[in-house]
Amino acid sequence: MFENKEKTNLNALGEFGLINHLTSGFENTNAESLIGIGDDAAVIKNNEHTVISTDQYIENVHFDVVYTPLKHLGFKVVAATISDLCAMNATPKQILISVGVSSKYTLEALEDLYNGIKAACDAYNVDLVGGDTSSSVQGLYISATALGEVSEQDVVKRTGAQPGELICVTGDLGGAYLGLQILEREKQVFLAAKDMQPDLESKDYIIGRQLKPEARVDIKPLFKELEIKPSSMIDISDGLSSELFHLSKNSNVGVAIHEDKLPIDQQTFDTARELNLDPTTCVLSGGEDYELLFTLPQKYYEKIKNSPDITIIGYVTPIEQGQVLINTEGSSIELKAQGWQHIA
Amino acid sequence: MFENKEKTNLNALGEFGLINHLTSGFENTNAESLIGIGDDAAVIKNNEHTVISTDQYIENVHFDVVYTPLKHLGFKVVAATISDLCAMNATPKQILISVGVSSKYTLEALEDLYNGIKAACDAYNVDLVGGDTSSSVQGLYISATALGEVSEQDVVKRTGAQPGELICVTGDLGGAYLGLQILEREKQVFLAAKDMQPDLESKDYIIGRQLKPEARVDIKPLFKELEIKPSSMIDISDGLSSELFHLSKNSNVGVAIHEDKLPIDQQTFDTARELNLDPTTCVLSGGEDYELLFTLPQKYYEKIKNSPDITIIGYVTPIEQGQVLINTEGSSIELKAQGWQHIA
Repeated sequence: MFENKEKTNLNALGEFGLINHLTSGFENTNAESLIGIGDDAAVIKNNEHTVISTDQYIENVHFDVVYTPLKHLGFKVVAATISDLCAMNATPKQILISVGVSSKYTLEALEDLYNGIKAACDAYNVDLVGGDTSSSVQGLYISATALGEVSEQDVVKRTGAQPGELICVTGDLGGAYLGLQILEREKQVFLAAKDMQPDLESKDYIIGRQLKPEARVDIKPLFKELEIKPSSMIDISDGLSSELFHLSKNSNVGVAIHEDKLPIDQQTFDTARELNLDPTTCVLSGGEDYELLFTLPQKYYEKIKNSPDITIIGYVTPIEQGQVLINTEGSSIELKAQGWQHIA
Repeated sequence: MFENKEKTNLNALGEFGLINHLTSGFENTNAESLIGIGDDAAVIKNNEHTVISTDQYIENVHFDVVYTPLKHLGFKVVAATISDLCAMNATPKQILISVGVSSKYTLEALEDLYNGIKAACDAYNVDLVGGDTSSSVQGLYISATALGEVSEQDVVKRTGAQPGELICVTGDLGGAYLGLQILEREKQVFLAAKDMQPDLESKDYIIGRQLKPEARVDIKPLFKELEIKPSSMIDISDGLSSELFHLSKNSNVGVAIHEDKLPIDQQTFDTARELNLDPTTCVLSGGEDYELLFTLPQKYYEKIKNSPDITIIGYVTPIEQGQVLINTEGSSIELKAQGWQHIA
């Protein structure tokens, strides 16, 4: 799980040398990115409204470098940050990334991080247009701010859900959480006996969901193609249950979701059982899937019912009916808001 | 210097409760801020180009809470971040602020921080439209991203300086650095004898420059009023010398500045002498003044020569002539790039 590499001390560069070095391989590809790194600020030409969101990724709060390759971390920072733009039905265009780094990190480690950032920028057609590097007293601190664009008529907020509408999710859920459990287990094994090789072969999918999640940039084009528009949307970063509560609160509605409709990958399901965890609880409370949760008027049912990317998991209800899970026996169980909160 | 207040543990809220609580007093005042805090991302309507810049403020790297009141820190974070937009000749409009905070901080401490942020947002007519809160393993970590707008013809980059042009600065320099020296000195006195009151009466100006700097949002309107436009501009956050090197490198020119023209406040000068420091060195290498450095075609000389906000400190030269300070005896001394680098 560890890598040993030749080291270069960060003090050899300086703040400006460092940022220039790390970003030298980046090129702006969007015509809107008029000025990128290298001036006091970036300048962006606007065709539509600007959508902007910011997130932080703090060592030993959001990630553990014992089992997180820094290249994967770089990719994840970009994917997770632009996921918020996808949730507004926007198209990601630019990102700014700041890094605070302690002296335990080498230049090569930061190069790995920026290689991952670049891989994600290339994959999502996003330009790195700014950022800041600094020393930190302890650990690695990353802050990312993503910009995208959306036309006024395409914006999807959290506030538009109406009783009777379909509740849908993209992809499958709970995998990232179970990937994390496996990585934590292997870390303990590794710390106990450092020459053991981790047994991760059968866990490739869920570990990938944890270490290298994808942002659903494909969903906005899918909506366009199907000629549908959600009435509300949010990304699932803190667990389905927590996000359902956000939608409920913001739209002033209730929700009813069906346990047997929740999309769970087989490996996710099997691993939950293996770890004596309830798969449904993992879906409801496990974080970091970065899928999208949205509501859709019933009239669009025919258009989405066969989509491999979308699962209908329930219905919007009047606010008086609260937030419930209808389990496999048909009983209504009140949902709890508990998600994956970093301050709790 | 310390304040003792009744404490509320942050665990009592949760991530969402915390951000809602801290930002409840904020209101969007710019018509362009269509959606602010409370959805996956903010949405901004654009009249002109978007200008965006990001900075980090890390405890015990960028600030010391022993002598930095958190309300002042909040104000400074906003002022310092929008200073980069001023340096592009843009008008600041929005800001996003993320905070990573360790368990030593109380809710009341964060309220102080956000009161300072709000005071600056009000002072500069900037809307807080996003952010993130998280726990950190150690200390307080703040990341801020500011957005502004500028028309295509108003953008001022670092690249436009031409030999023969005037080199100008706003305000006076070196004060923030000397304020920091005084605060550091008083911290040592305080740590040695905790009941001593600091002797700061005669240092109000320079301590204010360090703890509560202002962004020069007044300079863009001044340029408009005078009907002038700089050929290049940068903000002075890392010391005049370092910024002169940036302008030189980006514009491919040399610079010659005159020691006797450097704007130094009397308190700055006296304090430098008192601490056995060379006032000129403090101006050249001391950081955090957040004034603007810019170059201007000679034809504008008459328009600015009597401006109380602007000082002409020298001339742009051909690149072969390098970066020099002409001292009070008339000798040319090569400038050194050393600024106030947080990684060095």
